[in-house]
Amino acid sequence: MKRRYYLEDVALDDARARFEQALSDAGWQAPMAAERVPLSDSHNRITAAPVWARLSSPHYHAAAMDGIAVRAVNTVGATEVNPQRLVVGEQAVWVDTGDPMPPDTDAVIMAEYVQTVDEQVVQIMAAVTPWHHVRSLGEDIVATELIVPENHRLRAVDVGALAAAGHVDVVVHCRPRVVILPTGTELVRPEDVSDIQPGRIIEFNSLMLQGYIQEWGGTVTRKPPLPDRRETLRDAVQQVLSDHDIVVINAGSSAGSEDYTASVLSELGKVVVHGVAIRPGHPVILAVVDGKPVLGLPGYPVSTILTADLFLRPLVYRLQGQTPPHRPKLPAMMSRKLLSPTGEDEFVRVTLGNVDQRTIATPLTRGAGIVMSLVRADGLVQIPRFSEGVHAGAEVEVELLRDTTEITNTIVTIGSHDLALDLLASHLRRFDPDTRLVSANVGSLGGLLALKRGDTHLAGAHLLDEETGEYNRPFIKRLLPDEEVVLINLAYRDQGLIVVSGNPQNLGSLADLTRTDVRFVNRQKGSGTRILLDYHLKQQAIDPEQVTGYLHEEFTHMSVGAAVLSGVATVGMGILAAARALKLEFIPLFKERYDLVILRRHWESQLLDPLRRSLEDPAFHESVAALGGYDVSDMGREM
Amino acid sequence: MKRRYYLEDVALDDARARFEQALSDAGWQAPMAAERVPLSDSHNRITAAPVWARLSSPHYHAAAMDGIAVRAVNTVGATEVNPQRLVVGEQAVWVDTGDPMPPDTDAVIMAEYVQTVDEQVVQIMAAVTPWHHVRSLGEDIVATELIVPENHRLRAVDVGALAAAGHVDVVVHCRPRVVILPTGTELVRPEDVSDIQPGRIIEFNSLMLQGYIQEWGGTVTRKPPLPDRRETLRDAVQQVLSDHDIVVINAGSSAGSEDYTASVLSELGKVVVHGVAIRPGHPVILAVVDGKPVLGLPGYPVSTILTADLFLRPLVYRLQGQTPPHRPKLPAMMSRKLLSPTGEDEFVRVTLGNVDQRTIATPLTRGAGIVMSLVRADGLVQIPRFSEGVHAGAEVEVELLRDTTEITNTIVTIGSHDLALDLLASHLRRFDPDTRLVSANVGSLGGLLALKRGDTHLAGAHLLDEETGEYNRPFIKRLLPDEEVVLINLAYRDQGLIVVSGNPQNLGSLADLTRTDVRFVNRQKGSGTRILLDYHLKQQAIDPEQVTGYLHEEFTHMSVGAAVLSGVATVGMGILAAARALKLEFIPLFKERYDLVILRRHWESQLLDPLRRSLEDPAFHESVAALGGYDVSDMGREM
Repeated sequence: MKRRYYLEDVALDDARARFEQALSDAGWQAPMAAERVPLSDSHNRITAAPVWARLSSPHYHAAAMDGIAVRAVNTVGATEVNPQRLVVGEQAVWVDTGDPMPPDTDAVIMAEYVQTVDEQVVQIMAAVTPWHHVRSLGEDIVATELIVPENHRLRAVDVGALAAAGHVDVVVHCRPRVVILPTGTELVRPEDVSDIQPGRIIEFNSLMLQGYIQEWGGTVTRKPPLPDRRETLRDAVQQVLSDHDIVVINAGSSAGSEDYTASVLSELGKVVVHGVAIRPGHPVILAVVDGKPVLGLPGYPVSTILTADLFLRPLVYRLQGQTPPHRPKLPAMMSRKLLSPTGEDEFVRVTLGNVDQRTIATPLTRGAGIVMSLVRADGLVQIPRFSEGVHAGAEVEVELLRDTTEITNTIVTIGSHDLALDLLASHLRRFDPDTRLVSANVGSLGGLLALKRGDTHLAGAHLLDEETGEYNRPFIKRLLPDEEVVLINLAYRDQGLIVVSGNPQNLGSLADLTRTDVRFVNRQKGSGTRILLDYHLKQQAIDPEQVTGYLHEEFTHMSVGAAVLSGVATVGMGILAAARALKLEFIPLFKERYDLVILRRHWESQLLDPLRRSLEDPAFHESVAALGGYDVSDMGREM
Repeated sequence: MKRRYYLEDVALDDARARFEQALSDAGWQAPMAAERVPLSDSHNRITAAPVWARLSSPHYHAAAMDGIAVRAVNTVGATEVNPQRLVVGEQAVWVDTGDPMPPDTDAVIMAEYVQTVDEQVVQIMAAVTPWHHVRSLGEDIVATELIVPENHRLRAVDVGALAAAGHVDVVVHCRPRVVILPTGTELVRPEDVSDIQPGRIIEFNSLMLQGYIQEWGGTVTRKPPLPDRRETLRDAVQQVLSDHDIVVINAGSSAGSEDYTASVLSELGKVVVHGVAIRPGHPVILAVVDGKPVLGLPGYPVSTILTADLFLRPLVYRLQGQTPPHRPKLPAMMSRKLLSPTGEDEFVRVTLGNVDQRTIATPLTRGAGIVMSLVRADGLVQIPRFSEGVHAGAEVEVELLRDTTEITNTIVTIGSHDLALDLLASHLRRFDPDTRLVSANVGSLGGLLALKRGDTHLAGAHLLDEETGEYNRPFIKRLLPDEEVVLINLAYRDQGLIVVSGNPQNLGSLADLTRTDVRFVNRQKGSGTRILLDYHLKQQAIDPEQVTGYLHEEFTHMSVGAAVLSGVATVGMGILAAARALKLEFIPLFKERYDLVILRRHWESQLLDPLRRSLEDPAFHESVAALGGYDVSDMGREM
């Protein structure tokens, strides 16, 4: 029953061409059939045919003012000194705006310029030209003229114009019906998260796909996850085919032992491509079953979304007679070196920010399993198939996933991460909902170096100088001697020991780390936490060589926590938030100062206004204090 | 009962400030209350609070490959020449991707690199480092970290990340509920167009408003049109207030005798502003009733939409904690002089096209009643309050209503208009759905002048040289002596007499125009039709002075038709399409040649490819011929 599929390595353009050819060979038709919908449901739908005006607008000569309708020739010679008298009912007819012009009249004189002599006679002070204050028949729309062409997305104004032109409904392409079949015995519906167990994974890809497909104009059926059984998958595909235009199978497309998608699809139809030279998303399957496209999208969320973007999005648009809209592109400077495997087109997610008139692109993690890299991404950089990568400082072209104004309104922070920074990112939107704060976590020293390169507006730092016992300032003097730098306190935070719940080893001080039953997990050299540890070890005359595990380095608070949780270590040093996230126990030992390091010209800039206001806002102080483990007494103060 | 309201002339910024102050004084709260919605309904909604991760992702250490889970320390020293044996179940555990890492393991070796010795023993060829092929707990999302800030529009990826972080639902701002009350006894619902009479107007503004408000995030209740009765309007406003957050009354806001809106609103609440120094849209009413904003938008469609954009859009966004997104701006060269009244901010709708690397803005008609000017508009130019206008050739800043790529893909045609051009605009989208053809009607000569100025890619022309009897070429030689110009035939079209149905005067030739019972309506000097008429009058030795109405000039085929329809004239000269649009009778007299005049470099450009292909397409030939009155035998041929 199990067959092992070996993945191909088809170039992206080639894969697209083969899929297109196979669909065309199978008699696939795009755009789809048309349907007639009432105008009130037609907004954002795509016309299947040009629409011509049935009715002119106005459909009669209409008075454009309240006043009297006249024949212009009867007004010739009227002046203030020589007013002209007109007989009401014969030469002048009272009309309101929108009234049809009475027979044999061709102009309107505004009520304000008409003097009533008596019921039968009015007097005018000036002559008028023909068609004065008259909306002539067809002035807006001429019956038979083109209102909208075919394959046109109906905007709100178009819908109005169609109604004005005498239409009640409009013929549009049917919406492509896409069905999503998540597969994987380990998958749990998001609704059932409450009793999730290790080994079970929340099925959230179909939620993302649903949103995208709806944006593209399709309708979506989300099926509950299928177990990894060959027959179940085969039956499910057969069952959904008749009622849908595109089938998406999510996961099961790799060459693993429980990956049946390719085998099932080649039984039911034709697998055109299995394996495309892209990263992420390599194991994607492009198949045709019963003349319909069936896509097997790899299961890691970033792979799912990228392959959907490359192969599903064009299909959904084509079925509506459209090509996908082009995303705007922007040149940017890559802040870090990026090595890329040759042989694959790689799509790298980046964040973007404008610092000192340059747009800086910072690559996000490239792991295909990291959905937060999609959440944080501002753009995509494509590293072509035969390139080895990009140098730091090189210009790259970024396909934008956000508006350029969003990029312009971005405060960039690179450095040590802290939960209070997340809170700040959220809080400052109360003062300006258009401002974003995006942060990249590279540690305190990394942040100062980014500041030196001009890659960031601010850097979060908690660097203790071992010699002076002073925070941050000595490092700034060394690294940024020529810049006018402002140090703004965000908070003091507790650093302490992280141990498993119940503190079974009964640890309470640094001295305990030298016990032989204790296995420590350390942070990497250069990190603020490591420096703090080393400072206090020295103060307390504890030899690091006596600490088992001192050389076991992790790069984040969370990795330290995870090492403790998994039993690799029995204790680590870090902040309360990491312990709490993993339901570990925290023993506070020291307070450390966490500052925001900012060039003065940025600190005083308009962009940072909502940040400055947040730091002054008592509500923000309270919410950080409420996190626990924070002392906000100096928040916002220049240090 | 009737009260006369005199309109104010409040500056735009001032009007906004007063309205905001009045709302704030009335205790108006923005953003609105929040509601909890399931994730599957949350796409595009706005978060009412920051959302923090409930669960880490992965929420356990997970195998990232199919293979064996090991402790890395147990693999030290393994090489190809010195393979290491591991006992299955003790030192090595078989795992599939996604499985939780068994206790005391910290790395995975891919199945491909594992040799099975027997059921109990496997053999490995290389050592691994800790965490190799393991997705560690929290690698993607750390419980307690910020997923999305408050006042954030949820994108498809955000919804996925929220599910991954253990959420089933999310707290978002309620959608603002907007109710639209169309008023006007003359209004007819679009559905009832079939028996529309002169004096009745199709109520299509609410359809347009519905589309916009939904785009902005609100929900819409469209009420049927109300008659112009004071009590009816008052009762209607009172009735809808409790169930809606914003009330929009459309029309009835002027100072006319049947305009009750301001009077009713000042009875029910407070009219804050009535009359803003903008054009179009001057009579707008901004009011507060029961602490809620009530807007009286003027009735002409362009006024309705512009005032909705200026005053309603910000409210709908603010109720959701947002500011309206900024529309991108683009510098462009104004192709025509534009005079603007000082004292008002004027918003001019323009079409845009890139011709020879310059973006050309061409103003559309400024009539507030012309909904097609909204349909055709690519952008808005604001002429500030104290400016007198813009010179031809001046650079203006255009607020874009379309993507810049749409502008780039625009074929601009300025000149004589023809129905076949509309058909072409629609047909060429079969070859490239992203290409637009936009046309401005300024007559044949006007088109050649635009071509000379570099304002257009092509010009439609049917200019007969009276001396040589040749079409277009002599005019091009005179006007564009230095340019390499291509003349492409679009069609020959019938020109003839337009008379009322049944041809009661029994007209059949030019000679009939000199009859004393005949009143003619002419086209303006320089128009192709006028030149054709004069040419044939001369050929037939008919003295224009003998033609009654020869001096009565109209500027379009339709105006000529309308003059005949209204009885101002008994006959005009024009094309079949105009006669047919007005259900008039057409007597063909001559064939005239209608060409597209194009600079060769444009004719051969990539941009014009879908146009060239359309002109070669038999399907397009057929559809033009099917219009009637066209001879397509030379279509697409270089003349």
